Amino acid sequence: MAEKQLGSASFALARPVTVLGWGNIVGKKEGEGPLGGLFDQISQDSYFGEQTWEKAESAMQRQAVSAALERSGQPASALTALFGGDLMNQCIATSYAARSLNVPLFGLYGACSTMAESMALAALLIDGGFADFAGAVASSHFCTAERQYRTPLEYGGQRTPNAQWTATACGAVVLAREGSGPYISHVTVGKVVDRAIKDPNNMGAAMAPAAYDTISTHLSDTGRSAGFYDLIVTGDLGKLGSRVLKELFRQDGMELNNHNDCGLMLFDLQRQDVHCGGSGCGCSAAVLTALLLEQVKQGKLHNILFCATGALHSPTALGQGESIPGICHAVAITDTP
Amino acid sequence: MAEKQLGSASFALARPVTVLGWGNIVGKKEGEGPLGGLFDQISQDSYFGEQTWEKAESAMQRQAVSAALERSGQPASALTALFGGDLMNQCIATSYAARSLNVPLFGLYGACSTMAESMALAALLIDGGFADFAGAVASSHFCTAERQYRTPLEYGGQRTPNAQWTATACGAVVLAREGSGPYISHVTVGKVVDRAIKDPNNMGAAMAPAAYDTISTHLSDTGRSAGFYDLIVTGDLGKLGSRVLKELFRQDGMELNNHNDCGLMLFDLQRQDVHCGGSGCGCSAAVLTALLLEQVKQGKLHNILFCATGALHSPTALGQGESIPGICHAVAITDTP
Repeated sequence: MAEKQLGSASFALARPVTVLGWGNIVGKKEGEGPLGGLFDQISQDSYFGEQTWEKAESAMQRQAVSAALERSGQPASALTALFGGDLMNQCIATSYAARSLNVPLFGLYGACSTMAESMALAALLIDGGFADFAGAVASSHFCTAERQYRTPLEYGGQRTPNAQWTATACGAVVLAREGSGPYISHVTVGKVVDRAIKDPNNMGAAMAPAAYDTISTHLSDTGRSAGFYDLIVTGDLGKLGSRVLKELFRQDGMELNNHNDCGLMLFDLQRQDVHCGGSGCGCSAAVLTALLLEQVKQGKLHNILFCATGALHSPTALGQGESIPGICHAVAITDTP
Repeated sequence: MAEKQLGSASFALARPVTVLGWGNIVGKKEGEGPLGGLFDQISQDSYFGEQTWEKAESAMQRQAVSAALERSGQPASALTALFGGDLMNQCIATSYAARSLNVPLFGLYGACSTMAESMALAALLIDGGFADFAGAVASSHFCTAERQYRTPLEYGGQRTPNAQWTATACGAVVLAREGSGPYISHVTVGKVVDRAIKDPNNMGAAMAPAAYDTISTHLSDTGRSAGFYDLIVTGDLGKLGSRVLKELFRQDGMELNNHNDCGLMLFDLQRQDVHCGGSGCGCSAAVLTALLLEQVKQGKLHNILFCATGALHSPTALGQGESIPGICHAVAITDTP
């Protein structure tokens, strides 16, 4: 087995990689949620000053990356590579953002697991000795996702009780070989897990088995107990998916008491009419970069396992009778190197 | 600068990574081309035994990965991770293929640059000390691409003279820390380059500047001359894009005499009515795994630079007046460690 490999799908970095800077930008509704005071930027305009929602999402990526670079004290030219992705067909938010950032790009598609996937690869690039600095970014936009995956907004479609609300949000990080933390110490790569859920309005249930698989694998590979972490945070299972995840662990005789979900943290489910909670690549990216990294930096959290979960279906696949495969990548973040 | 970093966007592996196994599968038209005798499998059925073309493309990925694993002598469980992507919305060929392969997945979106992107990341994972074996796969299917990017096949749309033909093809490799080559020695990561081409029927011209940028960067970063390589092979610029690429180098006072393009190698342009040549992620993946790796293995080629080029647009972006950004990732392959 390779020297930094642990168990079946995890890696222990030889030397923890620092999260040197982070940045985010969200839409109006996200700004009205419980984390409203913590974001770098909240736009009241769903177009973010652009002509279309798709161009708006690219603008969000540029701004989140710029904010992360600014916090890191590094110019864009310091980034050896940017790892990024989004939900749009052909990941155009990312490609058009990277065009103007002028940084070498590794384009990713991991649906809502993208923030963990991008951070994992950026950390591996640095720990492998290939880079001093690398970036990671993920975004989503309610309006681009809704018309692509569901119906035009003008249609005014009724949302089902189990639906989640795609966040208009983007988060970015700058990782570095040197720095004072927070640190990424471990990475667990997810497998595609499919428990035959076919309802695109119930993606929490579709993704929960993937989260269960990756978290279990991580604990088994690292020899850690769930209690090692102050917080095991998924993104974004929502209310129903979180319940399924806990039930899956309960069947193993384990109570997952230190779990929360970015989809439940971004919005106030009582007040904001988002049904089962937030979703979208940008949801976990924004919660991580607005709240969690700050809490680790301030020592309020010592060890967290950031587990971003993606639903890897497409409208075409579902129309052909396919079920929804899920994936979850996990990144362990700590305040001590 | 990190120890394995060269110049602005290239990496020199500490110890060349072996391409241990490779496999491919193509459709009928590709099988009738000049490389017809070299493919592992040629299917006369555009559905590859499945119910839909999308499911067919997933089946192609499973079969190409299986063929690569078989040639490598390793089971799927030996792969620490699979890096893969395709052209379909939400990359469903890859996700559904990875579901049944049951291997940790890093999903990528690099359009037709995917084979080089996936091999680059798999090589970095191994050289970074994270894996002994990793896989890379990329696919395309004429029928899934045509109806997604252009018009339903039943429409019988006329093709313009500069159009390329999306290959129904898939290639996969198994990379390993140990082995007798061919070896990957260097990687150059591409930037997004956009010279304002807006014609989706002329993607060769849209991608040629990205290929020029990455090849120039590679030569500058490594201090190599173009003549170091027996072959600098792009995929897939086609006839027009290849001419543009040579012209761009000519403006630097350099004749790129050792250049060929996978889109020109897969089909016989005189005989097969593919206009400017082949395209699609699977085109370069299939040419690499059917012809080029074998030629390096047999010592007929000593050093090649495999430069897969992608056009990162979407029909939505073009409909909003955007131009077509290109990207090109390069992997240096050699017969001596």
